[in-house]
Amino acid sequence: MNFASDNTGPVHPKVWEALRAADEGHAGAYGAELEMEAVGERLRELLGWPDASVRLVATGTAGNSLALACLAKPWSAIFCSEDAHVHKDECNAPEFFTGGAKLTLVPSPDGRMAPGDLAAAIAREEARGVHGPQRGPVTVTQATELGTVHSLDHLAALRGAAGKLPLHMDGARFANALVSLGCGPDEMVRDFDAVTFGATKNGAMGVEAVVFQDPSHDWEFQLRRKRGAHLFSKHRYLSAQMAGYLDVWERNARHANAMATALVDGLQGKGIEIAHAVEANLLFPRLPAGEVLRLWDAGVRFYPWEGEPSEDRPEETVLCRMVCGWTTTEEEIEGLLGLL
Amino acid sequence: MNFASDNTGPVHPKVWEALRAADEGHAGAYGAELEMEAVGERLRELLGWPDASVRLVATGTAGNSLALACLAKPWSAIFCSEDAHVHKDECNAPEFFTGGAKLTLVPSPDGRMAPGDLAAAIAREEARGVHGPQRGPVTVTQATELGTVHSLDHLAALRGAAGKLPLHMDGARFANALVSLGCGPDEMVRDFDAVTFGATKNGAMGVEAVVFQDPSHDWEFQLRRKRGAHLFSKHRYLSAQMAGYLDVWERNARHANAMATALVDGLQGKGIEIAHAVEANLLFPRLPAGEVLRLWDAGVRFYPWEGEPSEDRPEETVLCRMVCGWTTTEEEIEGLLGLL
Amino acid sequence: MNFASDNTGPVHPKVWEALRAADEGHAGAYGAELEMEAVGERLRELLGWPDASVRLVATGTAGNSLALACLAKPWSAIFCSEDAHVHKDECNAPEFFTGGAKLTLVPSPDGRMAPGDLAAAIAREEARGVHGPQRGPVTVTQATELGTVHSLDHLAALRGAAGKLPLHMDGARFANALVSLGCGPDEMVRDFDAVTFGATKNGAMGVEAVVFQDPSHDWEFQLRRKRGAHLFSKHRYLSAQMAGYLDVWERNARHANAMATALVDGLQGKGIEIAHAVEANLLFPRLPAGEVLRLWDAGVRFYPWEGEPSEDRPEETVLCRMVCGWTTTEEEIEGLLGLL
Amino acid sequence: MNFASDNTGPVHPKVWEALRAADEGHAGAYGAELEMEAVGERLRELLGWPDASVRLVATGTAGNSLALACLAKPWSAIFCSEDAHVHKDECNAPEFFTGGAKLTLVPSPDGRMAPGDLAAAIAREEARGVHGPQRGPVTVTQATELGTVHSLDHLAALRGAAGKLPLHMDGARFANALVSLGCGPDEMVRDFDAVTFGATKNGAMGVEAVVFQDPSHDWEFQLRRKRGAHLFSKHRYLSAQMAGYLDVWERNARHANAMATALVDGLQGKGIEIAHAVEANLLFPRLPAGEVLRLWDAGVRFYPWEGEPSEDRPEETVLCRMVCGWTTTEEEIEGLLGLL
Repeated sequence: MNFASDNTGPVHPKVWEALRAADEGHAGAYGAELEMEAVGERLRELLGWPDASVRLVATGTAGNSLALACLAKPWSAIFCSEDAHVHKDECNAPEFFTGGAKLTLVPSPDGRMAPGDLAAAIAREEARGVHGPQRGPVTVTQATELGTVHSLDHLAALRGAAGKLPLHMDGARFANALVSLGCGPDEMVRDFDAVTFGATKNGAMGVEAVVFQDPSHDWEFQLRRKRGAHLFSKHRYLSAQMAGYLDVWERNARHANAMATALVDGLQGKGIEIAHAVEANLLFPRLPAGEVLRLWDAGVRFYPWEGEPSEDRPEETVLCRMVCGWTTTEEEIEGLLGLL
Repeated sequence: MNFASDNTGPVHPKVWEALRAADEGHAGAYGAELEMEAVGERLRELLGWPDASVRLVATGTAGNSLALACLAKPWSAIFCSEDAHVHKDECNAPEFFTGGAKLTLVPSPDGRMAPGDLAAAIAREEARGVHGPQRGPVTVTQATELGTVHSLDHLAALRGAAGKLPLHMDGARFANALVSLGCGPDEMVRDFDAVTFGATKNGAMGVEAVVFQDPSHDWEFQLRRKRGAHLFSKHRYLSAQMAGYLDVWERNARHANAMATALVDGLQGKGIEIAHAVEANLLFPRLPAGEVLRLWDAGVRFYPWEGEPSEDRPEETVLCRMVCGWTTTEEEIEGLLGLL
Repeated sequence: MNFASDNTGPVHPKVWEALRAADEGHAGAYGAELEMEAVGERLRELLGWPDASVRLVATGTAGNSLALACLAKPWSAIFCSEDAHVHKDECNAPEFFTGGAKLTLVPSPDGRMAPGDLAAAIAREEARGVHGPQRGPVTVTQATELGTVHSLDHLAALRGAAGKLPLHMDGARFANALVSLGCGPDEMVRDFDAVTFGATKNGAMGVEAVVFQDPSHDWEFQLRRKRGAHLFSKHRYLSAQMAGYLDVWERNARHANAMATALVDGLQGKGIEIAHAVEANLLFPRLPAGEVLRLWDAGVRFYPWEGEPSEDRPEETVLCRMVCGWTTTEEEIEGLLGLL
Repeated sequence: MNFASDNTGPVHPKVWEALRAADEGHAGAYGAELEMEAVGERLRELLGWPDASVRLVATGTAGNSLALACLAKPWSAIFCSEDAHVHKDECNAPEFFTGGAKLTLVPSPDGRMAPGDLAAAIAREEARGVHGPQRGPVTVTQATELGTVHSLDHLAALRGAAGKLPLHMDGARFANALVSLGCGPDEMVRDFDAVTFGATKNGAMGVEAVVFQDPSHDWEFQLRRKRGAHLFSKHRYLSAQMAGYLDVWERNARHANAMATALVDGLQGKGIEIAHAVEANLLFPRLPAGEVLRLWDAGVRFYPWEGEPSEDRPEETVLCRMVCGWTTTEEEIEGLLGLL
């Protein structure tokens, strides 16, 4: 029973199939393989961006950092939520790839920035001329790190707050957000300039697309990708993953979200409080420390989010994170619930 | 009547004198001039750091950024107050010189970080292993950007909160803080590892010393200074400035602080509220917009700190900043007060 | 018939097998999977470095750049051959990852630096104190970009020339060099501090190991890898590749080298001159432009190395590069020869 | 008798005069002082660039590095001579300020790149697509580090070789080159896009102008200058230096050049060989080691350029560098010659 993360799971059979199909003989290197053209076409169509630049990298951090480096200057402030992966979990990769831009944190009590808070943060950076950082892009995590999802109205309001600043979506869990909203991908990115379109967490081996609506970013992105050592020579195994993934992405995400909802229902049925709205495949239950330790002993895997459970204070509540993936089964959920 | 900043004023006669004395004939370049040795000795003695590395640069931003670059790694979090000059007024220079370190902001309602808030911010960076930024140095502005001064107890408590992390003092207004505390410079830096010792704002033309208690930082600092294009060929004009400055620094600061106190007394006598404790040479009066505009029309120079005065709302209060320097006169203060 | 590069070929069945074996259920992310321990052990044993740090990345450029970033400082000169991949084919990635180090080029007429030339280049960087770049690591490409291989004596002489400077091996074609020398891997790295151990070109999908003899580099490497966005979440698919690769690496390389030798023999039998000694799996024939164009028309793939063939000057000789890989067949070689 | 460098000498009286004149009362900080406008106007007029961006920094390395950072990208190759100050004497500052651009060295036997060699170096960088560095600006040192001066024809030919790439002039010794050519400053920069206009070596204390013909670089330059910690708060002391300097620059340079010529004549009269054409204020005599040591003992200051004089081999020739400045006197020259 593993609820530790959506990156501990295996690769989906359809992705394997596509990988093996791509393995035949020789192929152009560095993205010149035929599969890449088709992948570009499919993503342009899905996102409704007919001229978009579509490029692949192998990690989400690479996707975010390289995308932001194309949208920011070294002297920029990049606006993000306090919980953003780019801020908390990338070991200063965005600062590195941008040449030293600053991440300006916007309050995000449930993982989402309120449009008013974003507008206020942007306004604060306006007044200092050459002395302060200059206003740069806004990056929005969809779904958020706290398992919430921005509604289409919320996204539109963030665009309003951002004004003419570039808007980037960290879509490491793009599919989970999408099926949660029940809209089309083109609707979800309507107000955005660029998106890091994640696949790794939802069934791929290691591939993410970076898509810019405006293709004038394409050549700079390619140079930054190469200079960042993220251009694969045997690139066909990236495009194949993405091709296979696009056959299963919505189905996988729908399953993972449904499992999370089922788990929430079960936990709430046992009187356990859940910290944030569960709108994707992550949930944050508040569990007594003793229960956490007992579940761990029984082989259930998940991480504490705030604090550490202590044997000495078994009644103390610990905020935990549980993640469901495309392989999570009803049996696992029942198993977990049965242990409480 | 100019209360805009302590960097709009002229150079002190003693500094001019030292500059002209240094002008005789040829001299070793790049810090090899004789004056530099004496300057190093005096600062080591003043700070009570007998083996310290003492090097000069021409701007405060260079002093802070280069010092932090020696104390941090590119993957560090540097802890500073929300109002710190390194964060708000250096256009991402610390991020640039460190190779992409992150500034982690600690609340500072009156310019000072509370030790508990610092400890909490540090604790938050401990938990994420290789994924998050690593804990790096703490930088403390003394006097603060809001005109307050950390007491010796406060400084000791910040050291306690910082644990073994390196502690850096941004001493752009070192002298103003020192005469405010009435202690020795060695007492003020007792808990610190490095200090940017400012002179520019208090009577010099453009010179700051960067001092590391531990001389093992010296060679790296020299390389970073050269690579940052901050090593002067005609360096004798930096060491001369500092030599002249050290004859007048306390006198100048005492005067500037006294003028600030006198101005506060006068303003409060007229019922004007002052936002923070005035412990150095800066004050933040809350003035009606109409008064601000009238003073400006009369040729008084100072900046609004929050908001902009509007003719349409003359009663609305605007938080302003006024700065006294070594050249501020009682006549100027009376002049300003007379206009209210 | 594809002789364009050793990165246009497919993945070896043994690597596929290992990948599929790793796919079972959940696994620790970010290198915590069990396979990684075994991979570390095998490489430590092979290289004869019992305490070495062993970490994986997905591209050779990442391996080289991150390794050099741990061995150099931003103000270093890194010594390399004029033909080095790090200089010519990585779009300034080493400069990026090191924070601005300089690559100092050493003459390398056949891809190899002469020890005397290396010593002279190092000596030239000694004299300028803080003003010039500081002497940093030496990186040696084994096998070279021109298909030659350094003998063990040559490697020892380079160590002699480098003195105490760190010595790094770019082993993108480590296996091809090794079987060419007929020695053990421990012998080939005896004089080195670090090696980028390539697998991608010789049968893997995309994986390279970076190995430091001195494990004190390990934590910095991990931080740089994460900050460079090169830490894979589903890392098990890197360690599995390497595990599978280590079952076939010598066999694959021996085959590729033998095919290159056979192709050279055939070409020379037809009176075609080969530019450098063919000691690994690359060869550089000088072909008349007309022949190049005819081969291309017939579907043979390879690149010109210097100049471009022109229909207008069919007799003009063009220096070409041909690469054999683990999938090259005798039929392909005969096919190519038959077309001449 | 000091021939060590043109940066060991004092500040010219006219520069002092301007500095003192600027010292009156308060002035706008950060370049808002009135003097700066006049300085901008004078330089625009002198260079014949009516719309140019004119900004000041305090060191030549800052001027060069910041100018190149505006003209290059992090993935660029910057073309320069093998002897260029930016390559040999700036401790990787250009690499730092550009975010990791590469300096591509062009042969320069007498300090000057031949146009054909420049064209060939540029051509070599054209072929590798995204894999290699991209062609960036060309920087030309006028006068060169070897004391030679490019003729107007030579400069025009370099422009021809550079094609549409940006052309930057490192004018640390702009004045010495100018009076050597006997042309107008506008003629000397006719083919250039940007110039670092040096003053420090020729009578100032520490100031250089960076001028871009195209003013669209202005705002980026200002941001880079601030981020590089090179924006002076008491900026009036930079503009004052430049204002004073522009009253004496040609006279000072004419004198320094004349002294160099006189010294060459004297040395040649004593049978001493001079290595390069002496066209500005530097000369490179080949002196027997014994003579070098004797001159040093007698208090004459200058540096060896290649090799070190040894007591054990007094007959061995050492290539030395001697520099004349605006303070060099005929007495000093006669004194030196009398010691031989």
